[in-house]
Amino acid sequence: MWRASVLTIFPGMFPGPLGQSLAGKALAAGRWALETTDIRDFGLGGHRQVDDTPAGGGPGMVMRADVLAKAIDAVDTAGRPRLLMSPRGTPLNQARVAELAAGPGAVIVCGRFEGVDERLIEARGLQEVSGGDYVLSGGEIAALVLLDACVRLLPGVMGDEASGAEESFADGLLEYPQYTRPPTFEERPIPEVLLSGNHAKIAAFRREQAEKVTRERRPDLWQVYLARRAGPKKPPSEA
Amino acid sequence: MWRASVLTIFPGMFPGPLGQSLAGKALAAGRWALETTDIRDFGLGGHRQVDDTPAGGGPGMVMRADVLAKAIDAVDTAGRPRLLMSPRGTPLNQARVAELAAGPGAVIVCGRFEGVDERLIEARGLQEVSGGDYVLSGGEIAALVLLDACVRLLPGVMGDEASGAEESFADGLLEYPQYTRPPTFEERPIPEVLLSGNHAKIAAFRREQAEKVTRERRPDLWQVYLARRAGPKKPPSEA
Repeated sequence: MWRASVLTIFPGMFPGPLGQSLAGKALAAGRWALETTDIRDFGLGGHRQVDDTPAGGGPGMVMRADVLAKAIDAVDTAGRPRLLMSPRGTPLNQARVAELAAGPGAVIVCGRFEGVDERLIEARGLQEVSGGDYVLSGGEIAALVLLDACVRLLPGVMGDEASGAEESFADGLLEYPQYTRPPTFEERPIPEVLLSGNHAKIAAFRREQAEKVTRERRPDLWQVYLARRAGPKKPPSEA
Repeated sequence: MWRASVLTIFPGMFPGPLGQSLAGKALAAGRWALETTDIRDFGLGGHRQVDDTPAGGGPGMVMRADVLAKAIDAVDTAGRPRLLMSPRGTPLNQARVAELAAGPGAVIVCGRFEGVDERLIEARGLQEVSGGDYVLSGGEIAALVLLDACVRLLPGVMGDEASGAEESFADGLLEYPQYTRPPTFEERPIPEVLLSGNHAKIAAFRREQAEKVTRERRPDLWQVYLARRAGPKKPPSEA
């Protein structure tokens, strides 16, 4: 079974939204397991302190290496990647999600305050993962993102439904626009070709639309797509 | 007061993790307001159906334009941006978060199933926003991300603490490594300069470290940073 272990000072945030919908049903059905560790249980003194002021000064508080090390060492992490949700990390993408979902699970440390002592990250080999280029109040909601993305890929969770959005990302394109009943909504008809029954024309229309939306909205993905479509790079001398 | 209106078929997911910690305290203190609209209340027939099969075929289900339009029209959205969380959207970044936080709030539609009828997006002027290049089971957790990122920037929410992570992002760099007590952890000492009390040297060390980590982990951000540091672009003839 795919096992998620989350280390946090807010264990009450889990499973949270993952207790409902697709992920919640899969959790109840035993298709994945979620355990939380309250980092504060390993805190120091009567106040169970987990953080302290940054060496060298500056705003905020930093999570202590010794406290987090004890919390991590209390979890059986063997064989599972140890991740730290952090805006300094490698941006999460669908390829990484698929890789994680294909493995035995994940150990996820949720950073809080101004950050986590760098020595802990090094000493415990944490891989820093970012949900995106924005700052959250902590790693908890980013962990929910990662878990939701992984869980929907686990065997049996989505049933037989392949996901168009997924195929589209694997292709390097954003998804084409979707339409459904009614045929006309506020004087806007569904594009005729989609009602034609001509599968080749429908596929061509969708591909064209996916390329258009990617080109317009994500020049970064579009460049990667063009380069990939052009085949392996030639050495500069032949270019 | 900053007002968030969330349209979802899973209203029970809200406030969820935003009911705790920083965002939860701010919600209780009336620094922001959160209302949810259950899209299913506007569904069709005895089953309150909100989705149907994609025109042109394909996997999954598409949210109906007419149902969503009724749900949106029941919310007073005047003056607030109307967002749709979707992997096809513009990637959320800290600049967009700051812009949203400085405004009156946000109306957030959570997509589900294979997507949302494109005609609804056009007819109601929804701005598509993506949390990152991954596929979630729905827009709900992405909405939690956006709200958490915005709420922590609202006046009074973080108190007087400026955030280093934020200054760093505004600068175009990832954050420098952080250290705190104890001075030595598993034979790893805190870098000496941070304990020197020399503010200029500490600032230089941190800048150097922030540049190093950005260069190594995020060549994309690094190139933007270099270009910005080099000043306004010269026309090609002068380059």
